[in-house]
Amino acid sequence: MTQKDALPDVVSVGQYLAYRLIEVGGPHVFGLPGDFNLTLLDEMLTVPGIEWVGNTNELNASYAADAYARTGRGIASLVTTYGVGELSAINGIAGAYAEDVPVLQITGMPTTTARTNGALSHHTLVDGDYDHFFRAYKEVTVAGAILRAADASREIDRVLRAALDESKPVYLGIPMDVAAAPVSAAPLRHALRATPSDAVALTDFRGALAEVLAGQTQVTILAGPRVHRRKAEGILEAVAAHPGVRVATQASAKSMLPETHAASLGVYMGQMTPSGATRAAVDEAPLVILAGTVLSDVLTGFYSQAFDLAGAVELGISTARVGAVTFHDVRLEDSLRVLDEVVTGLVLTPAETPEQVWPWRAESDEPGDAPLTQKQLWTEVQQWLPADHIAIADAGTALYGALELQMPEGTDLLAQPIWSSIGYTLPATLGTSLASTRRSVLFIGDGAAQLTAQELATILHRGLHPIIVLINNAGFTIERVIQSPRAVYQGVTPWDWTALPAALAPGIPVVTSQVRTRDDLHRALVEASAATDRAVLIEAHLAADDAPNLLARLGSIVGG
Amino acid sequence: MTQKDALPDVVSVGQYLAYRLIEVGGPHVFGLPGDFNLTLLDEMLTVPGIEWVGNTNELNASYAADAYARTGRGIASLVTTYGVGELSAINGIAGAYAEDVPVLQITGMPTTTARTNGALSHHTLVDGDYDHFFRAYKEVTVAGAILRAADASREIDRVLRAALDESKPVYLGIPMDVAAAPVSAAPLRHALRATPSDAVALTDFRGALAEVLAGQTQVTILAGPRVHRRKAEGILEAVAAHPGVRVATQASAKSMLPETHAASLGVYMGQMTPSGATRAAVDEAPLVILAGTVLSDVLTGFYSQAFDLAGAVELGISTARVGAVTFHDVRLEDSLRVLDEVVTGLVLTPAETPEQVWPWRAESDEPGDAPLTQKQLWTEVQQWLPADHIAIADAGTALYGALELQMPEGTDLLAQPIWSSIGYTLPATLGTSLASTRRSVLFIGDGAAQLTAQELATILHRGLHPIIVLINNAGFTIERVIQSPRAVYQGVTPWDWTALPAALAPGIPVVTSQVRTRDDLHRALVEASAATDRAVLIEAHLAADDAPNLLARLGSIVGG
Repeated sequence: MTQKDALPDVVSVGQYLAYRLIEVGGPHVFGLPGDFNLTLLDEMLTVPGIEWVGNTNELNASYAADAYARTGRGIASLVTTYGVGELSAINGIAGAYAEDVPVLQITGMPTTTARTNGALSHHTLVDGDYDHFFRAYKEVTVAGAILRAADASREIDRVLRAALDESKPVYLGIPMDVAAAPVSAAPLRHALRATPSDAVALTDFRGALAEVLAGQTQVTILAGPRVHRRKAEGILEAVAAHPGVRVATQASAKSMLPETHAASLGVYMGQMTPSGATRAAVDEAPLVILAGTVLSDVLTGFYSQAFDLAGAVELGISTARVGAVTFHDVRLEDSLRVLDEVVTGLVLTPAETPEQVWPWRAESDEPGDAPLTQKQLWTEVQQWLPADHIAIADAGTALYGALELQMPEGTDLLAQPIWSSIGYTLPATLGTSLASTRRSVLFIGDGAAQLTAQELATILHRGLHPIIVLINNAGFTIERVIQSPRAVYQGVTPWDWTALPAALAPGIPVVTSQVRTRDDLHRALVEASAATDRAVLIEAHLAADDAPNLLARLGSIVGG
Repeated sequence: MTQKDALPDVVSVGQYLAYRLIEVGGPHVFGLPGDFNLTLLDEMLTVPGIEWVGNTNELNASYAADAYARTGRGIASLVTTYGVGELSAINGIAGAYAEDVPVLQITGMPTTTARTNGALSHHTLVDGDYDHFFRAYKEVTVAGAILRAADASREIDRVLRAALDESKPVYLGIPMDVAAAPVSAAPLRHALRATPSDAVALTDFRGALAEVLAGQTQVTILAGPRVHRRKAEGILEAVAAHPGVRVATQASAKSMLPETHAASLGVYMGQMTPSGATRAAVDEAPLVILAGTVLSDVLTGFYSQAFDLAGAVELGISTARVGAVTFHDVRLEDSLRVLDEVVTGLVLTPAETPEQVWPWRAESDEPGDAPLTQKQLWTEVQQWLPADHIAIADAGTALYGALELQMPEGTDLLAQPIWSSIGYTLPATLGTSLASTRRSVLFIGDGAAQLTAQELATILHRGLHPIIVLINNAGFTIERVIQSPRAVYQGVTPWDWTALPAALAPGIPVVTSQVRTRDDLHRALVEASAATDRAVLIEAHLAADDAPNLLARLGSIVGG
């Protein structure tokens, strides 16, 4: 931190927080103003380097912050006002919990005196209880505090450290008077560090791991999203470099190990695994190493994994398990390093990596001017998708199409298959675009995009230039494949999507197109890549009942 | 209920709920589908008379339901999916709590088995705990249940009854398997009734009230929003008919007693009371009767009421207080009836009702082609505003302008001055338009409208035809008058509002206009009244720092 030398001796609580956020999260702070956070914002924005990102609503702010944290690998933050603001963001914070993303929800609160006296303030339930929303947030965060001036900096550090340690969201309520209260800047001279692993536990784990791996001729790893969250892909790749090691990834960690890597088994999701050989490699391995995995319904093809879970090695964010024994306070990045060291000492038999199945690489025999289908759409996207982009797929046909793409080098997939909140990805595209110079490519359905559509205004007015492929299939096709496809609730109102940018961002150049055939889409994608200085919105018209094969399989499992 | 004769002996839980909702709330059910509520929706939608209103997102659904309940005077309901859906609605439900509106949040949940086993399902925090969101909802509801088949109908009735009794929101979580489970329809043959007043307590209250009123020569009532929520305006008007009775109303109950009524003192809000004579009449009354009042900050001009609160008579939703003594289980509608009876026995001196101050009735001396100001806008609206409409004002300049309008006969004001969640009123306009044949007239700022803009699609596609006056002042003017008007966070991105209807509802005729002068606005309002068969969107351009006088006073109080 270059600022450290220039730090004053005393800063306000709001300034203290801003300095820490720049250190652990980056310059951007998302949110909306409200009368209870104006003092806090005024204090925070005096700190050099802080950049305010005003969102159109709080849910969208929380989604943008989540994606900003995923992409930038720090703690993202949003500032909302009390009650009305924070409650609108709670779905996004819960999503960050479910998907292991460190996001700090900052609530500007009424004064300490108002809270103490139980004043009947606006933005309260007028029952004198100022802790309702803090308690609601306790359900979806791992740490939180309502700050007092006396120990504000210590509490800020405690809460941020919990987010660092656990990769989960946290909460700070900051009364108006506390936001401006003076605190010593001295703690800022020391970097905020995560809690290190317990050295004894780590040694014990190393011994147990060496014992269970002794005599193994091959090592099969199923890697999950938590490896990504701990920024430990490099260590995973080091492990994967040993001949005899094979790595499958979960759907929410797709291409975390490059899909062109010799050790890559591609995506594993139980009975929904695209490749039969991958499914067999994982399910029939004598010993599976679960690295940062989440065994949720969708990620396991609805609990259809067949490997020996009880006998597995499981590397979690802060615990490591070898069979029946769990070692506490062992961090994922450390347990992966130990794995690399232990594997280095093994004599493994180089393993065949089965050929991956990439359905969207198959040649299409349909004419290019036939009405566009999901199959044609994803086949065209597969041919086009460039390296070093960020692909983003919303939780509908978009995700289940994107999961079978072979990702080019440097292009990964951001999605939310655990929390699965539709509409998440449009504001998420704001977060990725601010956190990375890689261009974002969003795939989202019309039903989903309607939930959060106004955040397109923020994306466009900030001069960001993602490519948005809007899959217009007149409603919720993911629900249609599950049940009652003709029910009245499956439809959404028809919008003219290509007219939306001009309404939300008049005068800002945007490339828009409507595509109804594969040839149309081909031209639109080529045009999108060429238009590097502006956002692109491609509205792809598809039939309401058309679903990618993987989603159809999900439907047949869930719909029974 | 005409259906009662045709009721089957056995219905599903979803059907049972739908029958009850028609009985206590009306035909419309708001919400969005999700895989955990499809069975519930399929069951509910088999019941004759139920009408699904698909919203663009859950927050908007909760706002629409809130306004539907306020307007229709029943229990409104929304159906969301588990986790991702219900959490997005919680701000709207909290608002219903703060403002005493009975709204039922219905969550379609994973199966009872999944919950019992702690399955790692999507839409959960994948920690096996299925009660996180139910607990979050306990903070903002007065009753709730996660249904089991064994006592589902009893629990539905218990929860709905709590909403009837307390005019507060309630919660039902319905697992997929329970939604389709059979229950006896027999309870449906008995209407669901609110808990009656305790007869003994009511008698005791009558005695205490008669004693404290004996010898009073005049009766001064400050009536609040809870009178409206209990549908007791008729009783209030009966009380007001006695010579010697004068009635002031709170801002959130504006024109609950018609503002042309001889007994009307207009709006009272402490030091922010528009009329000095009204303020004096309430503050200097020897005895004030608080009927359904909420003494919140905004409604009291920030706790500046000067009347004798300890000695007052206070009629609450389910308690009545006479000085130091509180009588429990006395319903507001009953205590008001008792008040009417006691007042009938008094010999009161007919009171002068002081002349009301109606600032927007003053003649403007500015030319009609000068740039539009807040003062000109509200003066023009005052001249135009028709009888028998529903005026709706969002919590910014819109509310503080509308509060000083003299409402025509049959036109009341829907607003949210306690919870004050910006953006609430756009989805609320969907709710009012479905609940009433009176035409809705919405006043909303651009900053507020951006939060919930997509619900305009639902309004337009359903063929509703409110008049929307969008006050475009480039951001959050209500925050600007409080603090830091030039701060970066006060702005919002500029939209082309009149282009929005064509993007959200292509092909649906909407009258749009942009007005920059009073003459423009005059023409646009005349045109709006003439266009009775379609929606109208008037974008009024105003200066960012221009605020109605009442808001400027609020700013000087709050901003210090």
